[in-house]
Amino acid sequence: MDPDFPHGLTVPSQTKIVLLVMDGLGGLPLEPGGKTELETACKPNLDSLVERSALGLTVPAGPGITVGSGPGHLALFGYDPFEYEIGRGALEALGVDFDLGAQDVAARGNFCSVDENEIIIDRRAGRIPTDIACRLAEILRTIRVDGVEFFIEPVKEHRFAFILRAPELSDALSETDPLRTGVPPLSVRALNPQAQKTADYVNRFIDQAASLLADQKPANMILLRGFARLPALPAYPELYGLHPAAIAINGMYRGVARLAGMEVLDVRSPTIADEFATLEEYWNDFDFFYLHIKKTDTCGENGDFMGKVRAIEEVDALLPRLLALQPDVLIIGGDHSSPAVLKAHSWHPVPVLIHAAHVRPDGLSDFGERTCSRGSLGILPAKYILRIALANAGRLAKYGA
Amino acid sequence: MDPDFPHGLTVPSQTKIVLLVMDGLGGLPLEPGGKTELETACKPNLDSLVERSALGLTVPAGPGITVGSGPGHLALFGYDPFEYEIGRGALEALGVDFDLGAQDVAARGNFCSVDENEIIIDRRAGRIPTDIACRLAEILRTIRVDGVEFFIEPVKEHRFAFILRAPELSDALSETDPLRTGVPPLSVRALNPQAQKTADYVNRFIDQAASLLADQKPANMILLRGFARLPALPAYPELYGLHPAAIAINGMYRGVARLAGMEVLDVRSPTIADEFATLEEYWNDFDFFYLHIKKTDTCGENGDFMGKVRAIEEVDALLPRLLALQPDVLIIGGDHSSPAVLKAHSWHPVPVLIHAAHVRPDGLSDFGERTCSRGSLGILPAKYILRIALANAGRLAKYGA
Repeated sequence: MDPDFPHGLTVPSQTKIVLLVMDGLGGLPLEPGGKTELETACKPNLDSLVERSALGLTVPAGPGITVGSGPGHLALFGYDPFEYEIGRGALEALGVDFDLGAQDVAARGNFCSVDENEIIIDRRAGRIPTDIACRLAEILRTIRVDGVEFFIEPVKEHRFAFILRAPELSDALSETDPLRTGVPPLSVRALNPQAQKTADYVNRFIDQAASLLADQKPANMILLRGFARLPALPAYPELYGLHPAAIAINGMYRGVARLAGMEVLDVRSPTIADEFATLEEYWNDFDFFYLHIKKTDTCGENGDFMGKVRAIEEVDALLPRLLALQPDVLIIGGDHSSPAVLKAHSWHPVPVLIHAAHVRPDGLSDFGERTCSRGSLGILPAKYILRIALANAGRLAKYGA
Repeated sequence: MDPDFPHGLTVPSQTKIVLLVMDGLGGLPLEPGGKTELETACKPNLDSLVERSALGLTVPAGPGITVGSGPGHLALFGYDPFEYEIGRGALEALGVDFDLGAQDVAARGNFCSVDENEIIIDRRAGRIPTDIACRLAEILRTIRVDGVEFFIEPVKEHRFAFILRAPELSDALSETDPLRTGVPPLSVRALNPQAQKTADYVNRFIDQAASLLADQKPANMILLRGFARLPALPAYPELYGLHPAAIAINGMYRGVARLAGMEVLDVRSPTIADEFATLEEYWNDFDFFYLHIKKTDTCGENGDFMGKVRAIEEVDALLPRLLALQPDVLIIGGDHSSPAVLKAHSWHPVPVLIHAAHVRPDGLSDFGERTCSRGSLGILPAKYILRIALANAGRLAKYGA
């Protein structure tokens, strides 16, 4: 992978690593002079870890860059988020939490309007309301083509995610959207011979869609763009000799974890407590656990400052159960910042903590944005966190003599 | 060299720079809440420098990467330790402190066992004890081939370093170890026409070795792998217009310094005090001095916390002699960390101090891991330290108008 990470440096070990990601962890004060969400939270367990931890701030994809959860997670997982880009179709599918598999091909779909000669008159079908798009998606879901499975997932207004699932698919496909009106939709062409079968599947789907939607107004046709599979990443077992598992409720995070070669575990119910229960249940079966907490980001994006504070406190209260398992290395951080005051992801570096027997302690006393900015990890690219964890886990050999 | 270091930026100057390397300087507390070796040491002279110094932590070769002394020194000398890799054979020779010359070719050797048909039956000769390998090395040292000098340096058990010294050697050679038993050792092949003479030298050595070892049991043959010269580095005189000298006792450091174009000075006796005496003696003859202290690392690797503390104190006590020479820029740092508690090199960033007339002082009061993590140099790749020193020495022109 990275030119600055020599191959063959990893060594086997019995140690266990936990990567606890509070999505959108980084925050901002509501008012000048105030505290951030993390600084406001009453979190005795997190704070008491600090004494035996190294602190820092992670930069997901470069100074000033606000990332989505996809690149934010790729970076935390140790991949360069610019080197491994998640294509538009795959993003659309992950973005609605579709559980995209490594072999699936996804596209961004539009409902559109065509006239009686099949000429496009509106590429967005007048931006039909989402509930109408949901009804149309139900119609499209009745389409059957031998050898392939289709998934139609409404996004917003006229947009939907279109996914094909079958063996040996390819995303080397041309788009059907001519990007202008006054012309008919294009057929999908295979951009190489291996993609012909996939092109045929898509074209047969489109033919049936045209018939089924013919009487709908104004959305009587579909356009498909940005065919993409998930990127092929070198996976944890080969890269690091790890046997990794992911505990995450939402499809997007499950999809990205699967990319890294993680086994995605089932969680009994979509609660943080049951995510911790899953960690306990599978503790003996894996040596790396990615544990994803969504609520911090959801509250941040909703502008719910105190909700985000409470989400952090909920994690803090559950932390003793994780510590009781005695992981050799525990990383606690976030994939990006989501300050409630901005109601959105942001570019601000993200607090991170590495807790292990041989970190060099910083002499700091609480886990917050300001203390992390004085930590011994410094302000560092998020993609380096994993290798520091591997070092602390005794899983990296010396480079050179 | 580096794409981010424009050529032609250096300017002549009469200033003098000293790079004082305490090998394995970085440490860890013995117990949570305790102090590191450097923080424990009573070092009034080092501490009093801090007031007029910029502090920071160096990362030898990337976050989480533990380096050997070779890459650790290349980085401190201003080279990218991944760009300039020291090959396996050269590493083996440097690792036993062999004073490897820039023109020498080195290989990693094994004593092995062959049957009466010269078929390998054990690639490691049953891992013979080191003292037997030493005796066998004495036998191999009797081998003479016109035009070339051989050196055989036992490493451990069946392993030894094999070095050729002659003009115009090449390391473009195939290996003799087939990496499996049941087949005979391979002959060395020249991988390009220029390497033919070197291949002939090695094959003639191996022929004689086979005869001389024939009656030995179980180690009656040798295998050679990883032929390598030291990498060709752009040297200090051309890169920076410096006339540099190295003061180091152990062969490995002398070898790496020579790579950078440094003149390696003789030291009267292997003591730190005599290293400082050498610095005084040659002060007027050079404008850059690399002064290497080994004891800090030796104690760290031996798990001797207090020994490492005393080594730092010994350097501190000698520091006034160095300061009396009034270097324009003094860098004090380490090539990597060697915490006594780990008894090994480690990945932890390394304390560094730059003392010069125009550093921006940090307002810190002592030289230790925790103060350095709050220093104004930040946590930075070790390869950048030298150019900051050059700037402070008035040896770098402005880039752009």
